[in-house]
Amino acid sequence: MKKVAVIALGGNALLRGDQAGTIDEQEQNTTDTLENLVHLIREGYELVITHGNGPQVGNILMRNDAGEMIYKIPQMPLDICVADSQGGIGYMIERMLRNVLKKHNIDKEIVTLVTQVLVENDDPAFQEPTKRVGKIYSGEEADKIAGEKGWIFKEDKKRADGWRRVVPSPKPVGIMNERVVETLVRQGTIVIAAGGGGIPVYIDEEQRVRPSEAVIDKDSASSLLASQINADEFYILTDVSYVYINYGTPQEEKKEFLNYNDTVKYLEQGMFGEGDMAPKIHACLDFIKRGGRKSVITEAFKLEDKSYGTKITMEYED
Amino acid sequence: MKKVAVIALGGNALLRGDQAGTIDEQEQNTTDTLENLVHLIREGYELVITHGNGPQVGNILMRNDAGEMIYKIPQMPLDICVADSQGGIGYMIERMLRNVLKKHNIDKEIVTLVTQVLVENDDPAFQEPTKRVGKIYSGEEADKIAGEKGWIFKEDKKRADGWRRVVPSPKPVGIMNERVVETLVRQGTIVIAAGGGGIPVYIDEEQRVRPSEAVIDKDSASSLLASQINADEFYILTDVSYVYINYGTPQEEKKEFLNYNDTVKYLEQGMFGEGDMAPKIHACLDFIKRGGRKSVITEAFKLEDKSYGTKITMEYED
Repeated sequence: MKKVAVIALGGNALLRGDQAGTIDEQEQNTTDTLENLVHLIREGYELVITHGNGPQVGNILMRNDAGEMIYKIPQMPLDICVADSQGGIGYMIERMLRNVLKKHNIDKEIVTLVTQVLVENDDPAFQEPTKRVGKIYSGEEADKIAGEKGWIFKEDKKRADGWRRVVPSPKPVGIMNERVVETLVRQGTIVIAAGGGGIPVYIDEEQRVRPSEAVIDKDSASSLLASQINADEFYILTDVSYVYINYGTPQEEKKEFLNYNDTVKYLEQGMFGEGDMAPKIHACLDFIKRGGRKSVITEAFKLEDKSYGTKITMEYED
Repeated sequence: MKKVAVIALGGNALLRGDQAGTIDEQEQNTTDTLENLVHLIREGYELVITHGNGPQVGNILMRNDAGEMIYKIPQMPLDICVADSQGGIGYMIERMLRNVLKKHNIDKEIVTLVTQVLVENDDPAFQEPTKRVGKIYSGEEADKIAGEKGWIFKEDKKRADGWRRVVPSPKPVGIMNERVVETLVRQGTIVIAAGGGGIPVYIDEEQRVRPSEAVIDKDSASSLLASQINADEFYILTDVSYVYINYGTPQEEKKEFLNYNDTVKYLEQGMFGEGDMAPKIHACLDFIKRGGRKSVITEAFKLEDKSYGTKITMEYED
């Protein structure tokens, strides 16, 4: 039986922070990243690809703001903007992957799903919005919008009088279409799903699906998806090749293998950057705890080498 | 064996011309439209839902323009804008349909696919762009952009010195993921696909999938999809309940039934509005010619009544 892997593309896989965000840049980065997945496909893996949407949905939010300002076009809520970004990015990944596979003479079907991800409306995250989205406003503008729309703002430390909307980042508790994803991937189709952590929705008291003005951590949603479809392995492709402990100290140590208990211990000791590596480690551990065999954190181009990245498993292997 | 129907939602199914385009309006219209599909589901139909994207992709294009103007965010090409609209609209339809089915105690899985549709790069439509997209420019602006980006403009008859970009509307020749759509729908899943006529792509001389700066007629793509998945029936839901011949003359006649040959004859006689009803008739006839059993043109709310709409079949039924 073939192995199923969920691959979460993030960081500079699609768009680097130093780039303007043109479609040419995005297509080139995406192709470079996807080239590396060929190694996994040749090894016999069936793949589900998830992806971040930070820069893209940021741009969509800014365009909504500008469109209202100049043309009085009603702004779309956050859920629609995330859904838009799934369409655009998912299509781009699918098209570039079709071309990469063609180049390597690999014949596989690829399909892109628009994915809703369930959160709980009483998730404590709703009491404390933390995730910055959209444009930077002046204090005066922020006050005005807060009054009009009920948005919550936090100061942006990077510039004077800069305020950004913050939204909650609740925990994903269910993936819509998970059975469809599992069926398709086990039939040999590459599935692109749960982009940007999924479109956040919750079930209200009348059992209706309602949009949630929130964003879900992409790695957390991807980890849950991996568990729900009974994937064997979960990969987070990011901008570092390995996880380190005691990073930047004389005791700095690159970790090629980590077991569950040691990783929990390092996490509790604050060995991993809170806003950055710690959420990735949590996502990897969650996958293992729920029965997944192996989580991997690495850079895309490391996939060509069997010794790539940091492997997290329940126990150290001999 | 259950019957499969492809339902193309268009016109005022999602957003009426007299509305501002807020998300509340769109969600309400969508729910009202989808309520009517319950009749078909209760009759045992398996459904594929396609949809237009005119107002939505128009707004996305305008926001791209505004975002570049105010925030210098690079504009996305037309294919990405169409893909974005598939994500946002597809998600909205899926979520509203989940709630409609829940209300009626119908338990069915629903999935939304981001769909590329193949065109031929030497389609004669590329010689004569006809489809107006995006904002209205002044002649001076249009000249400048034509020089910079190579866009083609035509005068907008509705206002003085108003120019709009025109893009080709090539014929769809293939639907990506058609086998996936067919498999899912025959397993009982409702599939939302080919939104906005699909993201237009073509295969270049090196067998790569490339984006096409074009838009595909939604009814034409939906008709092709219906044929490719061997659907039994094809419905175009629009803003008229019936097709008429000699419309607006003393000989005006409402047609509840039409056979293939008579419809071709009426079409050749120019009985149907060129920019409006004629393309819908063409899409219906194409479906019949390729072996489909029945095409229907009507309004969504007519679906509750067995005698709804204009039915086009190869031969008149007794």
